[in-house]
Amino acid sequence: MPELRKDLLSGNWVILSPERPLNRADLLPAWSDCPDADQRYSETCPLCPGNEGFTPHEVHAHRPSEGAGSARNGPGWLVRVMPHKFPALVIEGDQDRRASGVYDRMGGVGAHEVVVETPEHGHRVFSPGAGDYERVLWAYRQRISDLKRDQRFRYVHVFKNHGERAGAGLYHAHSQLLALPVIPQAVQTEAACAEAHYRLRERCLLCDILHQELAERQRLVFHNRAAAVIAPYASRTPFELWVVPQRHGGAFEDHPAGEMFGLGEALHVALRLLKQALDDPPYRYTLVTAPFGEGTRPHLHWHMKIVPVVAGCEWGSGCHVNPTSPEEAAHYLRGLDAGPLKAS
Amino acid sequence: MPELRKDLLSGNWVILSPERPLNRADLLPAWSDCPDADQRYSETCPLCPGNEGFTPHEVHAHRPSEGAGSARNGPGWLVRVMPHKFPALVIEGDQDRRASGVYDRMGGVGAHEVVVETPEHGHRVFSPGAGDYERVLWAYRQRISDLKRDQRFRYVHVFKNHGERAGAGLYHAHSQLLALPVIPQAVQTEAACAEAHYRLRERCLLCDILHQELAERQRLVFHNRAAAVIAPYASRTPFELWVVPQRHGGAFEDHPAGEMFGLGEALHVALRLLKQALDDPPYRYTLVTAPFGEGTRPHLHWHMKIVPVVAGCEWGSGCHVNPTSPEEAAHYLRGLDAGPLKAS
Repeated sequence: MPELRKDLLSGNWVILSPERPLNRADLLPAWSDCPDADQRYSETCPLCPGNEGFTPHEVHAHRPSEGAGSARNGPGWLVRVMPHKFPALVIEGDQDRRASGVYDRMGGVGAHEVVVETPEHGHRVFSPGAGDYERVLWAYRQRISDLKRDQRFRYVHVFKNHGERAGAGLYHAHSQLLALPVIPQAVQTEAACAEAHYRLRERCLLCDILHQELAERQRLVFHNRAAAVIAPYASRTPFELWVVPQRHGGAFEDHPAGEMFGLGEALHVALRLLKQALDDPPYRYTLVTAPFGEGTRPHLHWHMKIVPVVAGCEWGSGCHVNPTSPEEAAHYLRGLDAGPLKAS
Repeated sequence: MPELRKDLLSGNWVILSPERPLNRADLLPAWSDCPDADQRYSETCPLCPGNEGFTPHEVHAHRPSEGAGSARNGPGWLVRVMPHKFPALVIEGDQDRRASGVYDRMGGVGAHEVVVETPEHGHRVFSPGAGDYERVLWAYRQRISDLKRDQRFRYVHVFKNHGERAGAGLYHAHSQLLALPVIPQAVQTEAACAEAHYRLRERCLLCDILHQELAERQRLVFHNRAAAVIAPYASRTPFELWVVPQRHGGAFEDHPAGEMFGLGEALHVALRLLKQALDDPPYRYTLVTAPFGEGTRPHLHWHMKIVPVVAGCEWGSGCHVNPTSPEEAAHYLRGLDAGPLKAS
């Protein structure tokens, strides 16, 4: 069974998951050599429609023609969510928090799910639009709302590793959810910084940032009524982007349903411009949302962080040196051909 | 001029250094394709002896035969330190701390130095022993002690990026120092965790960890009178290693001189076993030491962290999933042929 262990020096919990296949990703070709990037369907891909039998049963799917030939665990879906076949954390088992001498550990109880973002297999044929991202965001929302009911969990970590050799073990577009019995330290740190700002000023930090970015426009890449895409003031890598909802709110899953299309559009624009600017770079995104039960705390404002994987920007632990200013990055992104953006 | 900008969400300072050549590292072949890995000397390498004219003047060197033909800024050194030719921070300029709306920024004032660890060029011919690492540690110590006298600086970040495509822009073995006007957030977080432990227990956290690791031996890889090499309890990646001095002390540069050989030996053993175990993997190491003026605070205990660069272990920001337990890693490393270790 996996185990969660606390790094006492940093306060962070690490997942030790010895039963996961060690170098599965090493067995796959590098992203750039992906042999079936141009295929709409791969018969060996467990994420392709028709191959649902390769994976655990689905826990959510978007099926436009449900009842008319599109049954659970069969094809006909546009987005599909199921437990990970090699989960980092397991849903059953004892939480068993205890000391090991000076150290802290607990059983690796949690949920690990895969969000298949499209029925199309190859990343060169899949050209998502705002509606595709809206469906993916709905899947996150539905799964977080469901996992939240399990009293053992304190946070759902939603993330995507796109195009990295080992970060994305499968070429079919997907993202992942981890329901955790702990709150990741990065989330706690952000909450503490935002709370300090709120105590001093009685204003939300991200609302302040959003207000300044919309007024100054130097680092603004895109905005609609639901969200803004900005190159953050202290970008850790060239072309780091944040998607920040215009409406204040701590918990992503409680965001008004009427704004989901606008949020999907903002995510679409951000990822599409990034792809265009850096020729389909590897990137990671994470959704930073309120820990369970804290969604209404006034200093929390959910958002998404998109960070291109650029070698050489991290100089030792946590020391980032970035050669491209966010003003330059935003200026460049705003200047890219906006035609196809509007069409999608 | 470079600029330091604070990420208000995480509290971390990022260095924006727009004058550094953007993709210099991309112009170099990948480490594994390094064309001159077997050469003892390369005439185009600015770090090779005889080519000192390619670099800024040295600020420290270990010259065994000084006065007998080995002059400053000429060959004859075993270790040499000089300012970086393309520094991320600059030594002259105004600190100029100010707000930019809601944000915080300051001028990118600091020092950026390169520690050339050996006169030998190629990483396949350079086979360092404990004495080589001792000299490198002496160079760090001497430079930190010197940079500490500059009242503008609050911390010296010492790090090495070995073998990564873009992390190590040059193939000649070297590490780097950054003297910073801020304390990196990772260092502050560690200090806060150690202080909380000290307040509760009136004991140093790393002394507690060391005591347990030396008693249990499950995660102990090596120890001598000066230091222990351990696979940390909550290892973020397979084969993460820490070098922890046996003697408690906050500031690396104040460590007793008589123990420098033992510390060099521990670092040597750690890096040599790592190289043997994973076939010369890319790795990063950082020295975590006390911020200037805090060296005698009782909860601080300096140490070194060595983290192999293993793709796929970081799942979104700060969430680590590690398939190899530190007990397995330590067991494997202890079992490697120790013969050559003793001979070096």
